Amino acid sequence: MKKLLFTPGPLSTSKTVKEAMLEDMGSRDQAFVHAVKDIRNELLRLAHVSQGEGYECVIIQGSGTFGVESVISSVVGKNDVLLVIANGAYGERIVKMATIHQLKHYVLRFDEDQVVNPEVTEQFLKAHPDITHVACIHSETTTGLFNPIAEIGAISKNNDKTFIVDAMSSFGGVNMNMKTMNIDFLVSSSNKCIEGVPGFAFALCKKAELEKAKGQARSLSLDLYEQWKGLETNGQFRFTPPTLSIMAFRQAMKELEQEGGIAAREKRYQANKKILDKGMADLGFKQYLNADIQGHIITSFLYPADPGFNFERFYQKLNDRGFIIYPGKLSKADAFRIGNIGQIFPEDVKNLIAAIREVLEEEKINVAMVQ
Amino acid sequence: MKKLLFTPGPLSTSKTVKEAMLEDMGSRDQAFVHAVKDIRNELLRLAHVSQGEGYECVIIQGSGTFGVESVISSVVGKNDVLLVIANGAYGERIVKMATIHQLKHYVLRFDEDQVVNPEVTEQFLKAHPDITHVACIHSETTTGLFNPIAEIGAISKNNDKTFIVDAMSSFGGVNMNMKTMNIDFLVSSSNKCIEGVPGFAFALCKKAELEKAKGQARSLSLDLYEQWKGLETNGQFRFTPPTLSIMAFRQAMKELEQEGGIAAREKRYQANKKILDKGMADLGFKQYLNADIQGHIITSFLYPADPGFNFERFYQKLNDRGFIIYPGKLSKADAFRIGNIGQIFPEDVKNLIAAIREVLEEEKINVAMVQ
Repeated sequence: MKKLLFTPGPLSTSKTVKEAMLEDMGSRDQAFVHAVKDIRNELLRLAHVSQGEGYECVIIQGSGTFGVESVISSVVGKNDVLLVIANGAYGERIVKMATIHQLKHYVLRFDEDQVVNPEVTEQFLKAHPDITHVACIHSETTTGLFNPIAEIGAISKNNDKTFIVDAMSSFGGVNMNMKTMNIDFLVSSSNKCIEGVPGFAFALCKKAELEKAKGQARSLSLDLYEQWKGLETNGQFRFTPPTLSIMAFRQAMKELEQEGGIAAREKRYQANKKILDKGMADLGFKQYLNADIQGHIITSFLYPADPGFNFERFYQKLNDRGFIIYPGKLSKADAFRIGNIGQIFPEDVKNLIAAIREVLEEEKINVAMVQ
Repeated sequence: MKKLLFTPGPLSTSKTVKEAMLEDMGSRDQAFVHAVKDIRNELLRLAHVSQGEGYECVIIQGSGTFGVESVISSVVGKNDVLLVIANGAYGERIVKMATIHQLKHYVLRFDEDQVVNPEVTEQFLKAHPDITHVACIHSETTTGLFNPIAEIGAISKNNDKTFIVDAMSSFGGVNMNMKTMNIDFLVSSSNKCIEGVPGFAFALCKKAELEKAKGQARSLSLDLYEQWKGLETNGQFRFTPPTLSIMAFRQAMKELEQEGGIAAREKRYQANKKILDKGMADLGFKQYLNADIQGHIITSFLYPADPGFNFERFYQKLNDRGFIIYPGKLSKADAFRIGNIGQIFPEDVKNLIAAIREVLEEEKINVAMVQ
């Protein structure tokens, strides 16, 4: 049975994207080298920048986290000080990286159900002038909120800080201009809103900042600068790339264009989200976040108060019907998550809602029950 | 045009292996979790060990190098001392890792055209009793030689050292018994002799040694112990796995069994190698290595002395005929490499030889010319 993934990735991808993996590719072959070059240029274009304007794209093998760690552990030097702004598990993951790599760092925490507060952030920066770098998550997949990246970017710039954004689950599904948003490093991965398959992460980098990373990396594999230099020198990867994931990604980028670019994709995801919100509300589900900070990538729904609700059974019965949802990751509440990115269309969301209704009836769950 | 890859990987893979990637997979879904479990058990079986006997398999996202770095940077503790035995670029790569991670280490070097000498190694260990870990490459892809891993393993064991083997390009194509060879950590990757597609590395580990790595890793992404714990806790990866590469790999493992296991595959590669040796010798090519230390994975051929030989043109013309060969990596001689692993059969090698003959005639190269 073909299953639809309502997750934050790996996502449902098009048949043609997967079929782009049906031909073997030599990692040092010209056809492959060209594909890599295309992808790197096109990713910059999606962020409204270019090599000519002083931006570079580096592809990093592994998951999105590998990409974030590559940036964090390469870009923050021995004498630099990183501020990690955290309001969820992915912000905390960067804190973990900073700790493991023994980076000098501060953590500015906000509650999981609150966005990062720009005023508080600015005050923090003023109070700690030793800070050189600021890292923040755009779409916190823990909850689904969107942090005010443009505002944090402006504050970073005004205070002369290098700004690192983890836009893992949002890039390609939200229009982002690296220049006007004052982002120096933006990280995302192959299996998110560009709708490729998993296999690699990518970092879009302001070249002047990237160049400072020379000799600073704390590992061989995740050395952002050397990875870039390798790609620039002969177009090849230093170490074996996920050749077929890259071919799939190039096809995915073509299909993003065919859909109408990020603007059109963002609209589709927003349409999915609207149907999801309405359908789940009609069934009686409550969302964890207030609507005004909720993004259109993934949504956290609180468990129904009905003691008969068993998430494992709920998940399995939806799975049996071809719908894969996602468990929760909140620290303070029981919730599950539903993503609406990837090759998911309004009709699919309607079918998911119908399946959820069916399972709730079968399980005799009263979602509206008050706790 | 379908191209055949005569490289050390990514390799030519079967149609059915690639087709295993045509279905989207949720990374936390049971079907995927089962596939991962199967692969981990089966990889141990291929190395003639099992969980019951105290061995564990850890899968690491990224290329083979990511796997080697995960082991080196997790397993060698602050108070440990690593001996890297190097006779090629891949041994030197481990030296680089040891340097970056500031591990206490020694390097014992042999010439690129010589195998690691067990007696010299033993003397070195006796002379440096502070050494706790020994790392060595099995099939040095730089040249194609096989180092005497069983003998180094015995010496390591007799001297109470932990033995780490990079068997990247050989595991699956050479019968290796971790127990009798006294290997504590063996690293290889998805796109080598198991004939999967690129996307991940794996480390087969002696559990008692793996457990010592707790809290020792120098990065988050490449923490071997935590990666293992994650896989053991709920069968899931800590960070997004290359889902489709893993599905392709499971299919590749089935096809390895259908072929008759490692013994049959080893025979096929040896048959390929025999045809390659004979065909290239008939054309007048000289090999870089003496036959007695040459493995059956990849072979380095010296450039013809004829000044008309241009490798780029030679490569391109073979490529145009559907054959992808591999550039050289020797420090002291000009050579190119031809691999005979992957979905390559004796008939394919014959066709490659015929194409090389054609290109040489077209280019009017006298291979037999004496330098």
